[in-house]
Amino acid sequence: MKLWQKNTGSKKEVERFTIGRDPEFDILLAPFDVLGSMAHATMLAKIGLLTDAELSVLLKGLKDIYQEIENGQFQIREGVEDVHSQVEFLLTERYGEVGKKLHSGRSRNDQVLVDLKLYYRAAIAEIVEASQELFDLLISLSEKHKKDLMPGYTHTQLAMPSSFGLWFGSFAEGLTEDLGLLESAYRLANKNPLGSAAGYGSSFPLDRTLTTQLLGFEDLHHNVINAQNSRGKTERNLSFALAGIAATLNKLATDVVLFMNPHFGFISFPDDLTTGSSIMPHKKNPDVFELIRAKTNQIQSIPNTISLLLTNMSTGYHRDLQLLKEVLFPGIEQTLDCLRMCTFMLKEIRVKTRILEDPFYKHLFSVEAVNELVLCGTPFRDAYRKVGLDIENGEFYPDQQKVNHTHEGSIGNLNNDVIQSKMEKCLMQFGFEKTEKALAALLATGG
Amino acid sequence: MKLWQKNTGSKKEVERFTIGRDPEFDILLAPFDVLGSMAHATMLAKIGLLTDAELSVLLKGLKDIYQEIENGQFQIREGVEDVHSQVEFLLTERYGEVGKKLHSGRSRNDQVLVDLKLYYRAAIAEIVEASQELFDLLISLSEKHKKDLMPGYTHTQLAMPSSFGLWFGSFAEGLTEDLGLLESAYRLANKNPLGSAAGYGSSFPLDRTLTTQLLGFEDLHHNVINAQNSRGKTERNLSFALAGIAATLNKLATDVVLFMNPHFGFISFPDDLTTGSSIMPHKKNPDVFELIRAKTNQIQSIPNTISLLLTNMSTGYHRDLQLLKEVLFPGIEQTLDCLRMCTFMLKEIRVKTRILEDPFYKHLFSVEAVNELVLCGTPFRDAYRKVGLDIENGEFYPDQQKVNHTHEGSIGNLNNDVIQSKMEKCLMQFGFEKTEKALAALLATGG
Amino acid sequence: MKLWQKNTGSKKEVERFTIGRDPEFDILLAPFDVLGSMAHATMLAKIGLLTDAELSVLLKGLKDIYQEIENGQFQIREGVEDVHSQVEFLLTERYGEVGKKLHSGRSRNDQVLVDLKLYYRAAIAEIVEASQELFDLLISLSEKHKKDLMPGYTHTQLAMPSSFGLWFGSFAEGLTEDLGLLESAYRLANKNPLGSAAGYGSSFPLDRTLTTQLLGFEDLHHNVINAQNSRGKTERNLSFALAGIAATLNKLATDVVLFMNPHFGFISFPDDLTTGSSIMPHKKNPDVFELIRAKTNQIQSIPNTISLLLTNMSTGYHRDLQLLKEVLFPGIEQTLDCLRMCTFMLKEIRVKTRILEDPFYKHLFSVEAVNELVLCGTPFRDAYRKVGLDIENGEFYPDQQKVNHTHEGSIGNLNNDVIQSKMEKCLMQFGFEKTEKALAALLATGG
Amino acid sequence: MKLWQKNTGSKKEVERFTIGRDPEFDILLAPFDVLGSMAHATMLAKIGLLTDAELSVLLKGLKDIYQEIENGQFQIREGVEDVHSQVEFLLTERYGEVGKKLHSGRSRNDQVLVDLKLYYRAAIAEIVEASQELFDLLISLSEKHKKDLMPGYTHTQLAMPSSFGLWFGSFAEGLTEDLGLLESAYRLANKNPLGSAAGYGSSFPLDRTLTTQLLGFEDLHHNVINAQNSRGKTERNLSFALAGIAATLNKLATDVVLFMNPHFGFISFPDDLTTGSSIMPHKKNPDVFELIRAKTNQIQSIPNTISLLLTNMSTGYHRDLQLLKEVLFPGIEQTLDCLRMCTFMLKEIRVKTRILEDPFYKHLFSVEAVNELVLCGTPFRDAYRKVGLDIENGEFYPDQQKVNHTHEGSIGNLNNDVIQSKMEKCLMQFGFEKTEKALAALLATGG
Repeated sequence: MKLWQKNTGSKKEVERFTIGRDPEFDILLAPFDVLGSMAHATMLAKIGLLTDAELSVLLKGLKDIYQEIENGQFQIREGVEDVHSQVEFLLTERYGEVGKKLHSGRSRNDQVLVDLKLYYRAAIAEIVEASQELFDLLISLSEKHKKDLMPGYTHTQLAMPSSFGLWFGSFAEGLTEDLGLLESAYRLANKNPLGSAAGYGSSFPLDRTLTTQLLGFEDLHHNVINAQNSRGKTERNLSFALAGIAATLNKLATDVVLFMNPHFGFISFPDDLTTGSSIMPHKKNPDVFELIRAKTNQIQSIPNTISLLLTNMSTGYHRDLQLLKEVLFPGIEQTLDCLRMCTFMLKEIRVKTRILEDPFYKHLFSVEAVNELVLCGTPFRDAYRKVGLDIENGEFYPDQQKVNHTHEGSIGNLNNDVIQSKMEKCLMQFGFEKTEKALAALLATGG
Repeated sequence: MKLWQKNTGSKKEVERFTIGRDPEFDILLAPFDVLGSMAHATMLAKIGLLTDAELSVLLKGLKDIYQEIENGQFQIREGVEDVHSQVEFLLTERYGEVGKKLHSGRSRNDQVLVDLKLYYRAAIAEIVEASQELFDLLISLSEKHKKDLMPGYTHTQLAMPSSFGLWFGSFAEGLTEDLGLLESAYRLANKNPLGSAAGYGSSFPLDRTLTTQLLGFEDLHHNVINAQNSRGKTERNLSFALAGIAATLNKLATDVVLFMNPHFGFISFPDDLTTGSSIMPHKKNPDVFELIRAKTNQIQSIPNTISLLLTNMSTGYHRDLQLLKEVLFPGIEQTLDCLRMCTFMLKEIRVKTRILEDPFYKHLFSVEAVNELVLCGTPFRDAYRKVGLDIENGEFYPDQQKVNHTHEGSIGNLNNDVIQSKMEKCLMQFGFEKTEKALAALLATGG
Repeated sequence: MKLWQKNTGSKKEVERFTIGRDPEFDILLAPFDVLGSMAHATMLAKIGLLTDAELSVLLKGLKDIYQEIENGQFQIREGVEDVHSQVEFLLTERYGEVGKKLHSGRSRNDQVLVDLKLYYRAAIAEIVEASQELFDLLISLSEKHKKDLMPGYTHTQLAMPSSFGLWFGSFAEGLTEDLGLLESAYRLANKNPLGSAAGYGSSFPLDRTLTTQLLGFEDLHHNVINAQNSRGKTERNLSFALAGIAATLNKLATDVVLFMNPHFGFISFPDDLTTGSSIMPHKKNPDVFELIRAKTNQIQSIPNTISLLLTNMSTGYHRDLQLLKEVLFPGIEQTLDCLRMCTFMLKEIRVKTRILEDPFYKHLFSVEAVNELVLCGTPFRDAYRKVGLDIENGEFYPDQQKVNHTHEGSIGNLNNDVIQSKMEKCLMQFGFEKTEKALAALLATGG
Repeated sequence: MKLWQKNTGSKKEVERFTIGRDPEFDILLAPFDVLGSMAHATMLAKIGLLTDAELSVLLKGLKDIYQEIENGQFQIREGVEDVHSQVEFLLTERYGEVGKKLHSGRSRNDQVLVDLKLYYRAAIAEIVEASQELFDLLISLSEKHKKDLMPGYTHTQLAMPSSFGLWFGSFAEGLTEDLGLLESAYRLANKNPLGSAAGYGSSFPLDRTLTTQLLGFEDLHHNVINAQNSRGKTERNLSFALAGIAATLNKLATDVVLFMNPHFGFISFPDDLTTGSSIMPHKKNPDVFELIRAKTNQIQSIPNTISLLLTNMSTGYHRDLQLLKEVLFPGIEQTLDCLRMCTFMLKEIRVKTRILEDPFYKHLFSVEAVNELVLCGTPFRDAYRKVGLDIENGEFYPDQQKVNHTHEGSIGNLNNDVIQSKMEKCLMQFGFEKTEKALAALLATGG
């Protein structure tokens, strides 16, 4: 039995091999390809390579195609190489020669580059939105459970009192920090590569500043070789940011799986969100969080795959770069998926209360007891010796309901409001409105 | 023959195993440990856990130790566990009981955390400085060689005219973008974890805002669990930034090795900077750039090693975190080394001129010829056909000395001034002066 | 614009998330699931948990399903969870209660495990076959071009004479060594996990030795926890072996791209196997080899992704393991693809002859000249000084057509016959016939 | 404050940079360098490039140096480049011109290669020995605790009864499989590269078969380019094998840390092997196993670092290969360390008995109960329904002391004897005696 069909050894095989999975990713780039072309056409008219009449025709034609994409009516025809050719093909079919003029002063290289940049910008905006939703939920869970104590562990050993308020809040603040890395990736994605042509510029007097404005880019990659080199770097930096978010979700999922273990038994979910076993009624398997754990590991592997693809490669475009899509695009979707699934599940989380009142946990309170004595005037060494002796003699009976932590970010003073304003500030720094406004204006031009 | 000495199976073996390579890294943390302790002591006095007199003694003692470290007189004594214990030990030896009071309200965990944060800040400042030196050199090389044309490659095939001005400049602008990622790492390193104790806070009324100001931190990790989780995240983000710089240097080194190959022969270095062979006088081996290429690959492997160390781990301190030093610290040094060695070598680079005048390169100019016809009024299709035919008939004789590129970032308009102001803006965003000023003020307090 | 549809926040979303890409991989497991069930049923009958009549019915039913799979008539119905359920569902639909008896004494865990083992065995057999085809071609190219000299490089600098015979042959011998690693992976895949149930064995008196024989396994994972742990380890070891082959192909592809560069110009391919440019007739882009280079990097990233998925995980099944399919299965296909595409392309390779006769290469012969003098009696130091002086004075005129290497594996004595017998020995060690015979016998049993 | 000393920008800096950490690794290669030279000298004499008298002198000189290395009297002198030069330098200092003749017919490249191969062989032999010691202990612990039941988990949830016998035994069998991968690495290390010179062979009539025999190699890399390419491949394959062992130890360590958690409380170690806390007497931190977990992750990162170093590199020696030592050598030592530390700790492990008699675990026995009914004649569906109902009604009272598993590799039939003979067979396949005998004979030749 053969698992995979054999090469027929034909030119067709070569095509299949070189095209690879591109068509499934290209379709995601379609709307951005149209937007890039609208900006490019407008610029060509300004520098005199298109007449106003030609520009009008092209803008109308491109807007129609954009609409078709939005309506799900767009597809890459059999025999057409890629999304870029399909757009050009449609324009030429509908408007004749003018369709072919669109490609003056750009090459496939910078066209793909600008499409990717616009796509990554949009992807980042969605990831930020999904992160924000999870953040809001975590803050509200933190507030809701701020009095619910739980054990804090070090070395996977019982250490000191913690609380669910602290635990939920830690992931909320963690996410704000992860978005810092994502913002750095966004700033790189938000630079215009258009005009770099095949990576060495063009002898046409292109106005790159104009396309930068039209597409709402914050800046441009000035040096054209650097613009070409941004293919790969943009993907690497975005993959770093995804890996950062993934690492936070991985820790959350690892905790959830552990705390659902019956020895811990701190949290649970409704039966229809866990996977049971027909014969073992005690079985409530945390499959969703196990898969979040696994998928966040897959996401964390992406930066390294990108490094392997790019390293030891000389300046200039190499066909190898095509595989970046196959490596990164699924990671974007997985990140969104994991964020949303986390939010969905945590909405239903049930937290066990009064955990620490069980005598099993009394040693957690030893440091509290020492500190209390110190604050009441007993010298540290004496306090320390006293509590130590009490424990040794089995006479340590702490108050297991009260923990008196007051400093910034502690059990009794979670600082969730401060963390929330950090999040708001962080969100503002992306400046999504500006780019959205630019794209809307671009779509509104012409016809 | 035995390669490695056998375990004697004793408790001593356990010690050797658990301490590992820590002593060699700890010594780097020594000055920061002292600074962290000065801030902590000042704060303890403010909240009433130290008297003013005790504070005076401690500040003086700590400043003395700081001076000893600067003078190279500090070392961790045999039998003392680590740098933190050594500092405490010295204080107690010199001033008695008051030395032991310093540890109130903190644990080894947040002490190490704050030391690491301060160390990373300083390391980042050095990397930025080394990057800036390389940047300045690249810009000046770009300006110097802006008229020196060279071939531009795509698919490792001859494609279009490029220039050494463009090539050097591309790495300069690339570095400004890499520093964007480093700045994001700096912002994370520049958050105060002190006061998180073992990761669950303290029942002492610590004033974390005060230590934040004293140590020149921009902000604090508010949530104490998040502060603990920043161990690992800080390292990961810094490793991302190092990998970003490394990738840029790797491409530069790959190009240099290729362009030194005699088939290319575009660049050379003085004999004493290449490695020859006693019998093959043609041999000028680019060992330094081969090693830069290799070391930047090693640096690029660090993020992944960190991910492996941290993934699938539950909330709370684990001893595993200790290995982060062994993984990341050498990467910091290697990054500095590679940056500086690049600068050192490029100062001596010799560039071949008039490369493109060789008929071997004439096809590089075909796109130029077409564009020129288009700009003079010939329709694109006709221009294209004409040049194509000329080439086919062996009648294509382009002017191989002139390339007329004018747009932003192209051969004739490198935008190096714009790139330089980007760099300056980037440097300002780090805000190193603020932290340096704070540390200087801290060192000046007390006696 | 939204790139991805939003979660509806329903249980259905959870299903989509947990099922993931499993259906596309499950279909590959279908024939192996049937074979595993045939062996399990036969064993159940032997230990008295099925009657002979029941066994007959089941074997007939399973064989029918196997035939349907072979004919492409099998599919997983809407609402059926996976391939294993679909097979059981068909049996029950067709034969009633007896279909449900099949699952006695096994769990989904060991059923999936045995399916995967059988699948990997078949995949390895195909990879070996594809490797062998490439090997045969390389040997014949090596023989064909054994007199065609080319430069040998060290440090990417010209070093000594080499030949195409040596170059092609090096990859041939390299492949035999890569198959050594693959054989090690095969031995692990060729161990029976059936009977380990959920990873802790069963209280039924299963005869695991019998299923081992029936399925043609060489051995069994005896300890049942170890059998469960082999999920992950089997994938890791196979990924190592794929990475080994990929590394060899990566070097081959890197060489090809370099040697096709016009500065080198050593090899070429027919126009329809390279990608041209409409305007630059000199452009012959090596896209296929660039993509082989890139894909072999993707394959080399798999071991690490698997390590991230598996590390820091306690004993016992975790749902995370499901993702191993998504990570490894495409790597198997890519490896086959790259091997076959390499073979396809190399069949058409054209090699430039008489390269070394160009004076450009004369220094390559300096070591030859020295050695020749030594062999004729001149002391080494004198010979060395003489040739060195000749070179310095521009009076070095070596015979650039003759290289007299005679030792094992050198230009003049390629040892291709020895390498071929190594390959044959290597192929025999897999012992594919034995497993094929066992499966054929199993399929022939019953009705 | 500067963390690292600045480049002085001198040639000395270049030296420091290019030499790197080589001296510390070179010293490990010293004895193997001498052995390689003894074999090479013997071969040179045979083909007439050394007289018998010269050979005698060289063999005596080399044996003296070997003795000095064994006695710890050997070191690389200031100003001498590496271990190979030091050996040659000593010979020339002591015996004059004849010392220089030793280098005829080999280059630094194949000399380093053969040293590395011999070193890796010896390292593998030590790893095998350390693995065997751990294996023996695991088997004896498995036998000792074969009646001590514990819970078996799936999805980190309680699933079915397991035993310590099964648990210890699983790692024992796992190790035998890991050694399979190591044996594959050994076979690659056990091939002779000598005679490949700079990677393109030599015009001397070398007798490579003779050096293969003298050094106890199983075979040679025939094709000389392939011999050169084995640098990197040998390291990669060895790193795969180390990663395999590391993954097994990682799982063991993860389990230990989890089972020492007080919620589980299944195992413990004497106080002096855990790390306590002065104030929390309940604290028994599993630092050693946390560090084994971390170090095995570091080891698992090595294959990827090697891939990054090697990928996209053309045929022929590159200086980059030097860094392989820095990447792999510490991994060998860490692997040995982790194996030995595991053995050391497990000798002291204390296992809690009668765990499963606690009613907390009763649901673990539900499948047992169903199977028992089935074996007594109740149809599966009825048995299943009955037990399910009992559980639901709180009337499920299983016998929590008895588990009746009898099949191969199950709780009641661990197959430890079979696993032990697998181990013995595995050990024999390495054939260490043969290589040891050859080296001993080589050392005994000459004066």
